[in-house]
Amino acid sequence: VSAAEQAAQHLDIAVIPGDGIGPEVITEARKVLDVAAEASGATVDYTEYPLGVQHWLATGETLSEETLQQLRGHDAILFGAVGADPQDTRVPSGLIERELLLKLRFSLDHCVNLRPARTYPAVQTPLLADAPIDFVVVREGTEGPYVGNGGSIRKGTSQEIATEVSLNTAYGVQRVVEDAFVRAQGRSKKLTLVHKHNVLVHAGDLWRRAVEQAAPSYPDVTWDYMHVDAATIHMVTHPGRFDVIVTDNLFGDILTDLAGAVTGGIGLAASGSINATGDAPSMFEPVHGSAPDIAGQGIADPTAAILSAALMLDHLGLSTAAEQIEQAVHVQLSQWAAEGSATLSTAQRGDAYVQQLRRVVA
Amino acid sequence: VSAAEQAAQHLDIAVIPGDGIGPEVITEARKVLDVAAEASGATVDYTEYPLGVQHWLATGETLSEETLQQLRGHDAILFGAVGADPQDTRVPSGLIERELLLKLRFSLDHCVNLRPARTYPAVQTPLLADAPIDFVVVREGTEGPYVGNGGSIRKGTSQEIATEVSLNTAYGVQRVVEDAFVRAQGRSKKLTLVHKHNVLVHAGDLWRRAVEQAAPSYPDVTWDYMHVDAATIHMVTHPGRFDVIVTDNLFGDILTDLAGAVTGGIGLAASGSINATGDAPSMFEPVHGSAPDIAGQGIADPTAAILSAALMLDHLGLSTAAEQIEQAVHVQLSQWAAEGSATLSTAQRGDAYVQQLRRVVA
Ligand SMILES: CC(C)[C@H](C(=O)O)[C@@H](O)C(=O)O
Ligand SMILES: CC(C)[C@H](C(=O)O)[C@@H](O)C(=O)O
Repeated sequence: VSAAEQAAQHLDIAVIPGDGIGPEVITEARKVLDVAAEASGATVDYTEYPLGVQHWLATGETLSEETLQQLRGHDAILFGAVGADPQDTRVPSGLIERELLLKLRFSLDHCVNLRPARTYPAVQTPLLADAPIDFVVVREGTEGPYVGNGGSIRKGTSQEIATEVSLNTAYGVQRVVEDAFVRAQGRSKKLTLVHKHNVLVHAGDLWRRAVEQAAPSYPDVTWDYMHVDAATIHMVTHPGRFDVIVTDNLFGDILTDLAGAVTGGIGLAASGSINATGDAPSMFEPVHGSAPDIAGQGIADPTAAILSAALMLDHLGLSTAAEQIEQAVHVQLSQWAAEGSATLSTAQRGDAYVQQLRRVVA
Repeated sequence: VSAAEQAAQHLDIAVIPGDGIGPEVITEARKVLDVAAEASGATVDYTEYPLGVQHWLATGETLSEETLQQLRGHDAILFGAVGADPQDTRVPSGLIERELLLKLRFSLDHCVNLRPARTYPAVQTPLLADAPIDFVVVREGTEGPYVGNGGSIRKGTSQEIATEVSLNTAYGVQRVVEDAFVRAQGRSKKLTLVHKHNVLVHAGDLWRRAVEQAAPSYPDVTWDYMHVDAATIHMVTHPGRFDVIVTDNLFGDILTDLAGAVTGGIGLAASGSINATGDAPSMFEPVHGSAPDIAGQGIADPTAAILSAALMLDHLGLSTAAEQIEQAVHVQLSQWAAEGSATLSTAQRGDAYVQQLRRVVA
């Protein structure tokens, strides 16, 4: 147990279960988290924040300043999923996503959106060439086309014009690029910058110069560049070539869903929205959404939420506990591959991971 | 032979072979085109325009007003590929792509960038579930983030800000949406709008309203909406669900490379940049690029260029000739699947298609 782990004896976690399958998968993530923390001699306090569609319908609030201040006081945030059923006409499309999820990422300065993508030998991928995949996408989290800068004139007329402005700063890009180089050093030492600088000249050029300028400080890391369109091809034809991908907010959004798909399903994809300075809590959430179509049935796969909790533990210095969760998931997935797991409920999956984790930590 | 085919007896084609493997694949496309046209009783005149990297290095010109005027006079443009070797430091990155390829698409008002994606039984795809795929992407071609509207301040300093502005107009979106609905009517009557309207609110909303408003005029077509990130998942897990996809310029760029990959390789992916009014020539080109890494070796796959020529014939009213090329390609691909084709040169492939086509038209 490292010094960091000694220090992190008590974890004060904010939980935002959210909508749809969010609360279902978070329940399981907490079960697993409790066991892992305890085994590392840590205690966990949870404070639940009932934000999301229901809260908005009841109060008209998505995320008040007061709640945001409270959230700032926690060590980290465990986030389920938000978003209304598209059939639910009471909720303006994307409102909760923007005014809660994206507002959190922006307000808490989650500059790095970290999204690991890996295969498990026991999990079938949709690809014929089932070579191991193990890379991490470092997605910028606070700028690009996500800044909400745009508008329209003559709306609803045949003369309507709508704009969307992507904002990119040296400050925002450089810190993400540095983070990606550091991660590459701790992995297979290969960084790929993904952008579309042949078309998005100004932003693309800023990204490229940021990588070129950082590279000499990481002489052991080799780097290359790939257009985003070409990157989707490689992700299908030889995803094993990637180690660390660094990219902008929108390209990262697209590529990580694709990465989830090629590694065996978005039900396994975890993520962390990292505040790099520690001035505000980082947030950990499955990449999948609220999945209103299967919500309430108790059939959602909690694996991505559980792996997100492991990312959180690692971020908080409890790397042994994080590894133990990953190992338990690994072993349990292999067991299910042998036994079949199609009919298991969300809770049964969570319980199985807990049991497996107990064996790992014993 | 239809009235349109009777009228289209003489084809006046501009050819821009371009860079890298562009000239190699265009040579084969012309061989095939000649045979197909002749069989339909049409004659073809080619005017070659030596544009691209060499021309720029020699003259400093990418596409002069004069050349653009000459191009306007042709019935259609057959385009190979452009783009310098990224190692070639004499050519600013993306310059030829923007000032030649994109300039043509914008100047000739190629509002619809049409990109069919289909599997051939004989061609192995990278997907395990090898179900047939047959859809077409109707990619907007003249606006969105491709307009070149952006800039930077304090360039090269730690205070640099770079912007990219996506411009979207009712005019531009509506015409593409109409085109997509019409194509859906002629196919399986299923349209999918792909965007990211939960984040790109203004542009996304314009696209959605355009589809909602057009839909009643096409009561036999059902439509749905998908976020671009989710669309990449479906493209890998069940691409057979798509019939017609309509989307913006950048999302269309990304999705069609992915579509090329999942259908068996970008070596088969054809495209047409369509001027919908007929005021200017449409342009037909393989989706792949100039591939400097394999240029000059005579090993490029000419199939995408040949299928692009077929799209061109169809667009010019010679639909029988177009189908005959597609059939020849189909048969020849099956034959190669049985015999093996790994060692064939570009010219050998072209010659085989010609032979096969002679049988089809006989
Ligand atoms: C819900 C949406 C705003 C979000 C995003 O686009 O970032 C989601 O797709 C994700 O990837 O976390
Ligand atoms: C070369 C590039 C500008 C072009 C694009 O982005 O449209 C290419 O990727 C394509 O898809 O035709």
